[in-house]
Amino acid sequence: DRPLTIIAGPCQLEDRDHAFMIAAKVAEACAATGAQFVFKGSFDKANRTSLNGKRGIGMEEGLRIFEAVQAEFGCPVITDVHTEEQCAAVAEVVDILQIPAFLCRQTDLLLAAGRTGRGVNIKKGQFLSPPEMSNVADKVASTGNDKVMLCERGTTFGYNNLVADMRGLPTMARTGYPVVMDATHAVAQPGGLGGSSGGQREFAPVLARAAVSLGIAAVFMETHQDPDNAPSDGPNMIYLDQMPAVIASLMQFDALAKADPLRV
Amino acid sequence: DRPLTIIAGPCQLEDRDHAFMIAAKVAEACAATGAQFVFKGSFDKANRTSLNGKRGIGMEEGLRIFEAVQAEFGCPVITDVHTEEQCAAVAEVVDILQIPAFLCRQTDLLLAAGRTGRGVNIKKGQFLSPPEMSNVADKVASTGNDKVMLCERGTTFGYNNLVADMRGLPTMARTGYPVVMDATHAVAQPGGLGGSSGGQREFAPVLARAAVSLGIAAVFMETHQDPDNAPSDGPNMIYLDQMPAVIASLMQFDALAKADPLRV
Amino acid sequence: DRPLTIIAGPCQLEDRDHAFMIAAKVAEACAATGAQFVFKGSFDKANRTSLNGKRGIGMEEGLRIFEAVQAEFGCPVITDVHTEEQCAAVAEVVDILQIPAFLCRQTDLLLAAGRTGRGVNIKKGQFLSPPEMSNVADKVASTGNDKVMLCERGTTFGYNNLVADMRGLPTMARTGYPVVMDATHAVAQPGGLGGSSGGQREFAPVLARAAVSLGIAAVFMETHQDPDNAPSDGPNMIYLDQMPAVIASLMQFDALAKADPLRV
Amino acid sequence: DRPLTIIAGPCQLEDRDHAFMIAAKVAEACAATGAQFVFKGSFDKANRTSLNGKRGIGMEEGLRIFEAVQAEFGCPVITDVHTEEQCAAVAEVVDILQIPAFLCRQTDLLLAAGRTGRGVNIKKGQFLSPPEMSNVADKVASTGNDKVMLCERGTTFGYNNLVADMRGLPTMARTGYPVVMDATHAVAQPGGLGGSSGGQREFAPVLARAAVSLGIAAVFMETHQDPDNAPSDGPNMIYLDQMPAVIASLMQFDALAKADPLRV
Repeated sequence: DRPLTIIAGPCQLEDRDHAFMIAAKVAEACAATGAQFVFKGSFDKANRTSLNGKRGIGMEEGLRIFEAVQAEFGCPVITDVHTEEQCAAVAEVVDILQIPAFLCRQTDLLLAAGRTGRGVNIKKGQFLSPPEMSNVADKVASTGNDKVMLCERGTTFGYNNLVADMRGLPTMARTGYPVVMDATHAVAQPGGLGGSSGGQREFAPVLARAAVSLGIAAVFMETHQDPDNAPSDGPNMIYLDQMPAVIASLMQFDALAKADPLRV
Repeated sequence: DRPLTIIAGPCQLEDRDHAFMIAAKVAEACAATGAQFVFKGSFDKANRTSLNGKRGIGMEEGLRIFEAVQAEFGCPVITDVHTEEQCAAVAEVVDILQIPAFLCRQTDLLLAAGRTGRGVNIKKGQFLSPPEMSNVADKVASTGNDKVMLCERGTTFGYNNLVADMRGLPTMARTGYPVVMDATHAVAQPGGLGGSSGGQREFAPVLARAAVSLGIAAVFMETHQDPDNAPSDGPNMIYLDQMPAVIASLMQFDALAKADPLRV
Repeated sequence: DRPLTIIAGPCQLEDRDHAFMIAAKVAEACAATGAQFVFKGSFDKANRTSLNGKRGIGMEEGLRIFEAVQAEFGCPVITDVHTEEQCAAVAEVVDILQIPAFLCRQTDLLLAAGRTGRGVNIKKGQFLSPPEMSNVADKVASTGNDKVMLCERGTTFGYNNLVADMRGLPTMARTGYPVVMDATHAVAQPGGLGGSSGGQREFAPVLARAAVSLGIAAVFMETHQDPDNAPSDGPNMIYLDQMPAVIASLMQFDALAKADPLRV
Repeated sequence: DRPLTIIAGPCQLEDRDHAFMIAAKVAEACAATGAQFVFKGSFDKANRTSLNGKRGIGMEEGLRIFEAVQAEFGCPVITDVHTEEQCAAVAEVVDILQIPAFLCRQTDLLLAAGRTGRGVNIKKGQFLSPPEMSNVADKVASTGNDKVMLCERGTTFGYNNLVADMRGLPTMARTGYPVVMDATHAVAQPGGLGGSSGGQREFAPVLARAAVSLGIAAVFMETHQDPDNAPSDGPNMIYLDQMPAVIASLMQFDALAKADPLRV
């Protein structure tokens, strides 16, 4: 019943100035509307469609940027981890560790993330049904860490397409953990461009609004000032200059949804 | 941008008193919240899962009930047609003809419905993508009748399950025709009970709210005072005594959505 | 355990000479390999993707062609029916009535087809699970006609795509009715070309062979001497000049499958 | 065009005697029919549905068993790896490293597996289309190792179900790499039993035969003398005592398929 959290940032961390530019814009929009802001960025894209996709700036440089963002904007930061080894190092700086969808069943990664005591945002695998995420959350919780978040990012729907099943949000909420809607990855079209993924960014605000109207904890949206030239996920990222309007709109639906909770 | 229309009623027409009882309850809830009300009922279930399912009261008796509802409640009525021959007879009384999802590609039925000059609500086949409904609408419009409505009722998602893709609503809206969300059939589980369909009625208000938040023209919901003993579609119908709260809630989201239209 | 039946012909009947040309080629290939041949053609395409698609030559002319094919080639013929009214008229000539996939749940059509006493080949709807076809077959059988055939033609798999689930063939065979694989419609891509369907004809022999290896009763394949200029279904029809090799190959797999039946 | 390879063994390695018992039975069946035999077993199940599922005997004990199997039966062995670190150690003993489906896009794992110079069998993710596996194979091949195998194990098809698309086999074969059908995981029902996966073992021989009829390089089948009491994947494993008949049957279809290759 707390106001919506906005988890936003570029798909890939590029450099400090870029991170600041994006964080500043989103932080301002959040502050103006009462949203909590969590800055998101990836330091490594470990599962690109093809070997030609850019990997990222690496963990060390990424962590320095996250520290700077925390210091400058006073906001928590989130990033994805891909191996057990990364968890402890990342957790020195980062507030929320994110488990990528493909890896959401890897027990050792979940346990390592849980043991850091940090928040753990688990993306639902594209191959999983929403009720199965209860078992996944239990793996993290078995470490004594209950700061789990469960995130919808679309389910495989034929080839090269995903569908965001709105039934999944209240289903996952039955676990008692906060539920997050990843509105930009849910409109990706995996492998849709042959050597990389396509996307339908025009539908990201659609899915975000539908999800927020159901009374969720957070929306995850990737954004870029020039998505078509971003190093990854361009086709599904939201233009940075549209983010203030998107956030302001979502906050209105959030207020209404929190005042009128669905009983499922 | 007009307020939401509520299309509601029992799956099957049972008798005049039953229709009145349901229409009265929903009409009152609509009047209280500024929604337009359209009464829905079927006089024939032409495509039951098995031969054991009840078919319905027949066209003649059905039309008499519709006339009585129109006279008593002053509301338009909608029913589904299954053959070309039915169209003209039904159109003598009924305001909106509905094309069942399985039949949404049957050209002669679409043309016959169009030629009546009545409204034509076309359910998107569970086997069709949203953009294909443009071709379907064109079939009706070719008769000179542009009172077309396009209705989402879920897409086949593996076996015995449907998914309501929220991207489909703004996609169908690009045609310029009003878009309807059928929130109760979208939570049906076709063939899920062997000789009949199952359903998840708890999710019907979830899908209705998500859809309404996107700014659609109408919501379609089947309702019954005792769904578990209804002659058909019990598992997915909403309890009649819950309808006022559901409608009141939807009207709030509708007002916000109409004030803040999505541009897709 | 009888040898495979080949149901083949053009998607649309064009004229007598065209039907004879195709029937001659396929009949010869069947005779050479011990397959039974059933000639297939449609006199009306009642559910084209758009209004611009050609409808067909009509029932009367179609029936005259079927009579001529029966007389000339001594083979049974099959065609699809779309309304109750057509069933009796078509059954005067045609040996097997085919229920289109979209219409496979329309009770009155199934009963009318059953009452003719002719064979009834029911295509499994793209929206149905294989076990549900048992209920569908029961509708026909309730008329006292047990000459039912159940036909796989693909299941909705995301948008604009179908998948042929090989588990469906032995599942439908549990009913005791002969099972047919429609290898050319299963590779169609519904609405894939915008105003018409696309297709992947290169995979039709793939699906045919996989299905035949499981020991089915019949394969359904549409063929044309010039598919890219055929009035419908061009993208998924097999080139006529390739049919003899396809049939000869399938008959080898059929012999092996019938000698080594799967127990499911 | 070489005879079919049978990759078979228990889902989990249990102990040396158990491995020998299973290997002996399958090796004998392969020798009797001219199949090449590769022994399969897992030393760690890193992605169980829930934390309650058994993990396995561990890498060290697993490698000792693999060495013993190689020595006793003279056959290659295959096992799955889950981290970069495991690759070199496992490759000291194991002939073919297998990349689990969930991990098939993890670039570093693919590169580490490739660098061992061993064979690399990559399971197609349940979330990937067959053409995307070309990019995946390129990641391994970039290490100079072209001993890649591409393996179908089913694609997400709604919730708790998979479908094996037969079009995927010739599609993946276009890469030039050998194609494998995993017939037992393709009939798993992920999460279908709540805290573990269900399965339809009766369909494993169905999918194996359909795939082999298309002319593939290898079939992967898990087997157990008592599947219902196996530590994992019981519902989809084939009874060990049925394996000789299954293998003998597949070899007949393989011979026919190799003599009559499909041109796709």
